[in-house]
Amino acid sequence: MISNQMNDLSKLCIHTITTKPWEIEKAAKNYAAAGVKGITVWRDALKGRNIRETGQLLRDNDLTVVSLCRGGFFPNRDPSKREAAIDDNRKLIEEAVELGTKLIVLVTGADPNQSLEDSREQIYEGISAIIPDAESAEVKLAIEPLHPMYADSRSAINTIAQANQMAEDLNSPFVGVAVDVYHLWWDPDLENEIKRCGENNHLFAFHICDWKTPTNDLLLDRGLMGEGCIPIKKIRSWVENAGFHGFHEVEIFSSLYWKQDQSELLKDIIHAYHKYV
Amino acid sequence: MISNQMNDLSKLCIHTITTKPWEIEKAAKNYAAAGVKGITVWRDALKGRNIRETGQLLRDNDLTVVSLCRGGFFPNRDPSKREAAIDDNRKLIEEAVELGTKLIVLVTGADPNQSLEDSREQIYEGISAIIPDAESAEVKLAIEPLHPMYADSRSAINTIAQANQMAEDLNSPFVGVAVDVYHLWWDPDLENEIKRCGENNHLFAFHICDWKTPTNDLLLDRGLMGEGCIPIKKIRSWVENAGFHGFHEVEIFSSLYWKQDQSELLKDIIHAYHKYV
Repeated sequence: MISNQMNDLSKLCIHTITTKPWEIEKAAKNYAAAGVKGITVWRDALKGRNIRETGQLLRDNDLTVVSLCRGGFFPNRDPSKREAAIDDNRKLIEEAVELGTKLIVLVTGADPNQSLEDSREQIYEGISAIIPDAESAEVKLAIEPLHPMYADSRSAINTIAQANQMAEDLNSPFVGVAVDVYHLWWDPDLENEIKRCGENNHLFAFHICDWKTPTNDLLLDRGLMGEGCIPIKKIRSWVENAGFHGFHEVEIFSSLYWKQDQSELLKDIIHAYHKYV
Repeated sequence: MISNQMNDLSKLCIHTITTKPWEIEKAAKNYAAAGVKGITVWRDALKGRNIRETGQLLRDNDLTVVSLCRGGFFPNRDPSKREAAIDDNRKLIEEAVELGTKLIVLVTGADPNQSLEDSREQIYEGISAIIPDAESAEVKLAIEPLHPMYADSRSAINTIAQANQMAEDLNSPFVGVAVDVYHLWWDPDLENEIKRCGENNHLFAFHICDWKTPTNDLLLDRGLMGEGCIPIKKIRSWVENAGFHGFHEVEIFSSLYWKQDQSELLKDIIHAYHKYV
């Protein structure tokens, strides 16, 4: 059964990158004024800021800080770079604590100069290395499987089945999965794997946007919900049936939308959220 | 075990679209002069020509006509358009007979205005409808699973597992699968599914090129073998272990390479074939 449309904004979260031209302070003020209740902070939005104070400012705007994006990028043929990546992820966990969020999204990474199998092993090793830090900080880590078109350089984890398997193998209550409709909508196993994810209490996050036809750029041409072919309502019903009742996070990278008036974009997001999610 | 490099050109086939600026007559002459033994003909290359005579010209150049590209594109919300697609595929089978090839590659299609499940049903129905024509013409049909980035409009069949399943369900000796490394390299199940494909005598074709990092266009930025991250030798060993001993078909869509001197490109292809396949 496909759920009805979203009548209120209590579960709407927006990623700061969606309105990239806005500084985080402006984004927070405008999201809050529009009734949005959640924000996911991209690390670049914190640059040059006191993270603790920024977190407080977000809460002062009645925003839940849903997650911090993004850690990961573990694989590298060069062991010293793998160590550096692990150190950087440890630092990110500290930043999550300062910001006051309980979740980090991991884009796991890939290195085109080695096999996907090697990259996957290094992802496993990298996450393993930071689990103790995550546990003691009480910050969860969500493995985000990325669309296969990013298998060369951004993520060697390209299906929810792979992410589920890795979360199960890592076997920590602090490691789960982020389900992003953009990356996963095409997968014939999606419904079953979302169910599996929920049964293992691994469904940590739900990201939404749409896939436009045509898509003119591999990275920066995502669509607003309703503009494309992703069955968002259906996938939302699957994550809800799997026990997920957290935020619906709007994460849109679009060179097109970043050029527009961001206040208009925010209105369009809310309209699309009511109608198509 | 990864096989050694290709020491001769007896299994090298080139798709006419790879050297798109050349008319088919020129392509045939130049491929043959370079020692290439196979050609796969894209339908657009036959435009305005007597197909039977063109086929004879290819054979006169000592070229095996490996396949005709491409049929398919079955799904559409509009039933009359689905009928038209089936008719067009029947016509293509006739053209394959005139050309003198025993194989048609099917890009199965998708319609972003309906669900992937509906598109997949319509693909099944479309292929079913033309099997009698294929059988009486003795022309085989290879379902080509396309990369998930084409799930919106070009193919609702995005993994080799789906293509295998559909070929098994259709259950005709005239329906099999085309394995293209560009579409499938990222798949963690690839080795097993190639094995399954071979065990069912469904491995009809093997297409090669490479995935560049970065890839700047979803369609027209394929790389020469060796330019990217696809483990071509490894995948070749898998298809050979699965019993495939046919041609290695170079299929590169590249707005970059089409702008270059095509004779130089042909030399580069042969060099890359020796070194990286």
